[in-house]
Amino acid sequence: MERFEFHNPTKIVYGTLEASKMGQWLNGVAKSCLLVMGKGSARKSGAFDRVAGSLKEYGIEFKVLEGVKSNPVLSKVEEGIEVVKRGHLESVLALGGGSVMDTAKAIAAGALMEGANIWDVFLGKAEIKAALPIFTCPTLAASGSEMNGYMVITNEETGHKLATGSIHVYPSVSVLDPELTVTVPKDYTAYGGVDAVCHLMEPYFNGPAKYTPVQDALAESLMKTIMNETMACLKDPSSLDHRGAMMWGATLALNGLTKAGVGEHHFPVHLIEHAISAIFDVPHGAGLGALLPGWMRFFATKRPERLRKFAIQVMGVHPHGSDEEVIQEGIITFSGWLEKIGTPSRLKDLGIGKDSLSDIAHNASFQASIWGMDGVYSGDVIHTVLTMAY
Amino acid sequence: MERFEFHNPTKIVYGTLEASKMGQWLNGVAKSCLLVMGKGSARKSGAFDRVAGSLKEYGIEFKVLEGVKSNPVLSKVEEGIEVVKRGHLESVLALGGGSVMDTAKAIAAGALMEGANIWDVFLGKAEIKAALPIFTCPTLAASGSEMNGYMVITNEETGHKLATGSIHVYPSVSVLDPELTVTVPKDYTAYGGVDAVCHLMEPYFNGPAKYTPVQDALAESLMKTIMNETMACLKDPSSLDHRGAMMWGATLALNGLTKAGVGEHHFPVHLIEHAISAIFDVPHGAGLGALLPGWMRFFATKRPERLRKFAIQVMGVHPHGSDEEVIQEGIITFSGWLEKIGTPSRLKDLGIGKDSLSDIAHNASFQASIWGMDGVYSGDVIHTVLTMAY
Repeated sequence: MERFEFHNPTKIVYGTLEASKMGQWLNGVAKSCLLVMGKGSARKSGAFDRVAGSLKEYGIEFKVLEGVKSNPVLSKVEEGIEVVKRGHLESVLALGGGSVMDTAKAIAAGALMEGANIWDVFLGKAEIKAALPIFTCPTLAASGSEMNGYMVITNEETGHKLATGSIHVYPSVSVLDPELTVTVPKDYTAYGGVDAVCHLMEPYFNGPAKYTPVQDALAESLMKTIMNETMACLKDPSSLDHRGAMMWGATLALNGLTKAGVGEHHFPVHLIEHAISAIFDVPHGAGLGALLPGWMRFFATKRPERLRKFAIQVMGVHPHGSDEEVIQEGIITFSGWLEKIGTPSRLKDLGIGKDSLSDIAHNASFQASIWGMDGVYSGDVIHTVLTMAY
Repeated sequence: MERFEFHNPTKIVYGTLEASKMGQWLNGVAKSCLLVMGKGSARKSGAFDRVAGSLKEYGIEFKVLEGVKSNPVLSKVEEGIEVVKRGHLESVLALGGGSVMDTAKAIAAGALMEGANIWDVFLGKAEIKAALPIFTCPTLAASGSEMNGYMVITNEETGHKLATGSIHVYPSVSVLDPELTVTVPKDYTAYGGVDAVCHLMEPYFNGPAKYTPVQDALAESLMKTIMNETMACLKDPSSLDHRGAMMWGATLALNGLTKAGVGEHHFPVHLIEHAISAIFDVPHGAGLGALLPGWMRFFATKRPERLRKFAIQVMGVHPHGSDEEVIQEGIITFSGWLEKIGTPSRLKDLGIGKDSLSDIAHNASFQASIWGMDGVYSGDVIHTVLTMAY
């Protein structure tokens, strides 16, 4: 195990119908909030009425910022910062998926930036020193943003989708109400499962080769559970049992627990996917699914022992047979899961032309330089991965 | 899954030789501390020199409270409270195992009690409203006290060993330095493994029968890992890989993660063990080992499906065969692990006479009434468990 610090101060409140009591957590902390939402599903599902009703009950004033889209954009963040500053709002409350939560975090930090703007932070040119209190009420099991200090924003002018993080943007309280997720359509339910599983895979595969039995065991057990629960949610979308298990599983998949101690590691699949969705605006989970089996074939040439372990421990492949056979069967079984839940499992499933691979590689290599990954993931290496995933 | 709140604000710093940098975490938070220690092992191993040296480096004044024993006693807590009050000490730093950490927590809370004393809290007659900042530097992988808000103290006058908890006694920072644990003797290494595994077992077995796949998967994977790592530490006591994995595993075993969402649950094995060690002063982990197989035989008559799952998922029993066969093999395999690591696996291994079972049951049933468990664990039921474990 490598040296690590683990500090996750977010309070989680899990329970059916807890969204209707959201106001109690802001009460005493902030007299007002910016309520950040997506493109309408929270109004349609009744989630907005529940949360807004509870805010009113506790006398919390709020302004609404609506229309956050998947692959959330910087202009929306800037709009939110303006509303917060103009209204002297004291906190930010996200009601939505990862895009909404990430937008809310960027607003909460951006509203208190001095002498720099929030995009400078994504570019590594400025640091977050404070943020307004952040509350989240996720409506999708996927990003894990409700229990971590990360956010991903796309600058639509430059076409870059970048990630950053800070201890100041951990939500104060996140309310996980599985009832809010029963209306999530099948495709986004599946994309959420892929995203959560990929959050577990990246530190599992991409750390230095250290002895990390605790982290491995946690990641493997969460991967298996989330894969099962994704299938169960698709079969029985209104089951609070399955929606709830998937929600908590997705939260734990990126709350820092399974990566603490694995050492410095990369998120290459996320890196490349961000380039794809910055250019083609595909759903994040669909992009990840399209990349993963190809990336696994590439990675099998680098660290076969990890893919063998994954195949046996997560995909249930029998450990007889050569490394090559076991790994091959593991990747096929994983692709089979992607197909069963109806997500892309190859790049061409996204309708992207093979002639676009160079553009994607170029965009991704710019991000790699910001993430400090260009030594390992050059444009050429990324192009190889893309070709193997096509 | 049941409604839950999960909020664990403790910052964990893991790494070899991190104890030598302990002072940095108090720096800026407190100008002084009470350094709480056990009966001499921290001085012998050099842990005291490292921590004290770092405190001096940062100019943190400290007084030492030494001599905390296993099954820590109230009189020591009261002595510590006096030293803190007299010296106007601003924080408490525990350097030791679970007994030292629990004593430190009780001192940190007791020093700020008004109009009541700390034992009233254990009796359920008063509440903790504040505590001095608590720092821990565990020297044993066992209790998990370094990342939770619980403490267990024995009142030697009344002969009762009671547990209580509060959000205020979560340590601010806990430094896990596996180097400090390489000198732990074999018997206490093994007892620590049993304690950590038992912390995972109690919520796993004793919650209401709900659908908790995430919690089950986490608990099962941690149980397996800790069992393996205990054996590995005994085989190779100086291995930082194994000591480190065991240390982090034991921390996660009782940090609230695997029990959040399982619903109201009891800790019957801990309850009965507390009675045993209150009367006979045996090491906590030895008492748990002596009870567990017997308690499993008792519990198999109540919830066979959970014991079957445990046998298959944790002990690796092949799922063919009847429930009875699978369960029986699971318990035998678990007893075999206890024997391999050299801990008691029956009550008589502790040298306790059969005629003492009534006294133990009587003591435990008093605690059961304080824990609100007397409905399920009456004196008669406890006596039955004791008889099956003898």
